[in-house]
Amino acid sequence: MTERCDLLITNIHAATMDPSIAGGYGAVEDAAVAVTGGRIVWLGPRRELPDTAADRTLDGEGQWLTPGLIDCHTHLVYGGHRAGEFARRLGGESYEDVARAGGGILSTVRATRAASAEQLYRGAEPRLRALMSEGATTIEVKSGYGLELDTELKQLSTARRLAQHHPVDIVTTCLAAHALPPEYDGRADEYIDLVCEQILPAVAREQLADAVDMFCEKIAFSVEQCQRVIDAAKKLDLPVKVHAEQLARTGATAMAAKSSALSADHIEYITDEDVALMADSGTVAVLLPGAFYTLKETRVPPVEKLRAAGVSMALSTDLNPGSCPIASLRLMMNMGCNLFGLTPAEALAGVTRSAARALGLCCSRGVLRPGLRADMALWPMDTPDQLAYELGALQPAQVFLGGRDVTAG
Amino acid sequence: MTERCDLLITNIHAATMDPSIAGGYGAVEDAAVAVTGGRIVWLGPRRELPDTAADRTLDGEGQWLTPGLIDCHTHLVYGGHRAGEFARRLGGESYEDVARAGGGILSTVRATRAASAEQLYRGAEPRLRALMSEGATTIEVKSGYGLELDTELKQLSTARRLAQHHPVDIVTTCLAAHALPPEYDGRADEYIDLVCEQILPAVAREQLADAVDMFCEKIAFSVEQCQRVIDAAKKLDLPVKVHAEQLARTGATAMAAKSSALSADHIEYITDEDVALMADSGTVAVLLPGAFYTLKETRVPPVEKLRAAGVSMALSTDLNPGSCPIASLRLMMNMGCNLFGLTPAEALAGVTRSAARALGLCCSRGVLRPGLRADMALWPMDTPDQLAYELGALQPAQVFLGGRDVTAG
Ligand SMILES: [Zn+2]
Ligand SMILES: [Zn+2]
Repeated sequence: MTERCDLLITNIHAATMDPSIAGGYGAVEDAAVAVTGGRIVWLGPRRELPDTAADRTLDGEGQWLTPGLIDCHTHLVYGGHRAGEFARRLGGESYEDVARAGGGILSTVRATRAASAEQLYRGAEPRLRALMSEGATTIEVKSGYGLELDTELKQLSTARRLAQHHPVDIVTTCLAAHALPPEYDGRADEYIDLVCEQILPAVAREQLADAVDMFCEKIAFSVEQCQRVIDAAKKLDLPVKVHAEQLARTGATAMAAKSSALSADHIEYITDEDVALMADSGTVAVLLPGAFYTLKETRVPPVEKLRAAGVSMALSTDLNPGSCPIASLRLMMNMGCNLFGLTPAEALAGVTRSAARALGLCCSRGVLRPGLRADMALWPMDTPDQLAYELGALQPAQVFLGGRDVTAG
Repeated sequence: MTERCDLLITNIHAATMDPSIAGGYGAVEDAAVAVTGGRIVWLGPRRELPDTAADRTLDGEGQWLTPGLIDCHTHLVYGGHRAGEFARRLGGESYEDVARAGGGILSTVRATRAASAEQLYRGAEPRLRALMSEGATTIEVKSGYGLELDTELKQLSTARRLAQHHPVDIVTTCLAAHALPPEYDGRADEYIDLVCEQILPAVAREQLADAVDMFCEKIAFSVEQCQRVIDAAKKLDLPVKVHAEQLARTGATAMAAKSSALSADHIEYITDEDVALMADSGTVAVLLPGAFYTLKETRVPPVEKLRAAGVSMALSTDLNPGSCPIASLRLMMNMGCNLFGLTPAEALAGVTRSAARALGLCCSRGVLRPGLRADMALWPMDTPDQLAYELGALQPAQVFLGGRDVTAG
């Protein structure tokens, strides 16, 4: 009997990223993949393909098919930019001088509060398009430059609106506990009250956030304050993730793991014990080499220990106006290898399989496997190692979102 | 009397990069620029624009106009790639293991010798297009993966052919003294004889090279051998440039300056004396942060001393399959700031004015000024600081080569 499908792609090699297939890429050479109803329904060696009638057949011309890329940690909706601050620091001004001149995260908070929803949308769109042009099919977007209810809602609804008008999946995260707003100076606990009692419940009521994040660091909020945010999120049935141990050991990653957080992000300063806790809880390590690079940090996350413990390592841009104004997952793959010592296969897993897990979406995407969404990118390359190795010239030839061809340009 | 011109652009800000205009960018706000016969014929504040009739008028909508970008040091024509070698090193293999397995520069020499001219062309084209998509209007291309007459000619003529079929200026450099070919193992002086007596004269006869380059380093050629190459180039009336002091102090930069070389490139290990010699000779310092980054070097070039001495600092990709498979001048501007401490204005000068000087082309381009070529890029940004600050989202809205709109599609 002949099977039917919407789309059949043959004459490809598949980097499935399926860990049940041997080799870092879960590679199936000379493969075929069949898609129906937005999902992969068959994938395997072409010679084993059952007799299939397809509405559309695509000759992959020997190219490599990968899962669509996933950027699991961005702050891409914000007002203004901080190019002037960047220039002042390179001109020799200290961080203190820049802060006194009105720079730093609070300048982005001011600009985001002042921006209309339309201005936020228009500012974010080129950043979103840049990520999409590299084959990204799922992108997480955080709030956190409002630090007051209305602006947090404005950021999150802008993210939702971006998804309505672009062929990409956007996952939203409420990061109201990102920084202390100036009007709460010296009253951090009261601001956390506001986050837990008003902002998070309102965001949940409007279904504007898929998760809750927080910045646990000496310059932001304490472990105790973050634990209160986690507890409030749990009451609202929202999963959590934590900006943890970027600048120093705080205990944030241990808290995240004990709270079954989806991910702990940055984690340059975690200990062996933290690694073991992450392995136990299944909390994903989200590595952010672009921020490490921009901030000229010197302490790298313990990649070898995370690898040995079997902790999933995702890679993401951390796209934001201060510590990483870089809308390129491919550059993050390259930096993950060159700065953090990942292998090219780990880098690709970091922006596919592990990134899906960091968003709680590993049941639906991040791997090419029957039953999962047909979010896929087709690349004109000889080997998937090229994705982390080279930048600029290698672009996806075609991108599919739920089986639909959404190739940019 | 009304003036006539081919193209008039108004409602722009111009980052002229003209050092005679105050400020790092030589900025003219609310400017207008008139172009005739491929050259700028007028540039200044819009209110001072003489009565002008233009065949075409363009409203710049408040965007910034810069000189077209110039990549003054690339090896973009080569066979194969080295992604597998990249993966093996990240997988823990040593440089020696990789070399024994056939990796390193000689693997690219083998692949380049084996490639047809058509294969070289098709491999190089996506890299060229990537550079052009960022606003590059002049790109230098070196040979040096042939190391024998026929393949050096094949590389250089491929570069010439790329220029015939793409709206970009390509400047070629013969780098036959790049590495010792395996067939001359132990006979470096004899190979230099071949370079000086056969390869360079043939390349000059066919007018395939605009300059001559050499790799002066312990792992390549000595100062004495490079001096012979310089002498041969001078006899052929070809200007010279030198890959110098990337891995150790060799005396190469001093030799370059004393030979009035256009540029000394890399120069991480130069001394104060070398800096003074460069300032005297007007030799440009070509900084290559992408190679520094990829090779995980730790010694940065002495930017403060170069700045204090008034040495022109260019920035370039060094685009090549081993130490910098990155076709992005914008990333080099960002790395020039983040890794080497350039200011954003110095980074833009590095890919315009100083890059033109490194190619001996400062009389024709690299600055927006009446009399010079109308190679220009128009950018949707608030300040030219954004060019070095952010990556991915910011793309040129329009690019002009000799006044012709060549915006990538
Ligand atoms: Zn972040
Ligand atoms: Zn080079």
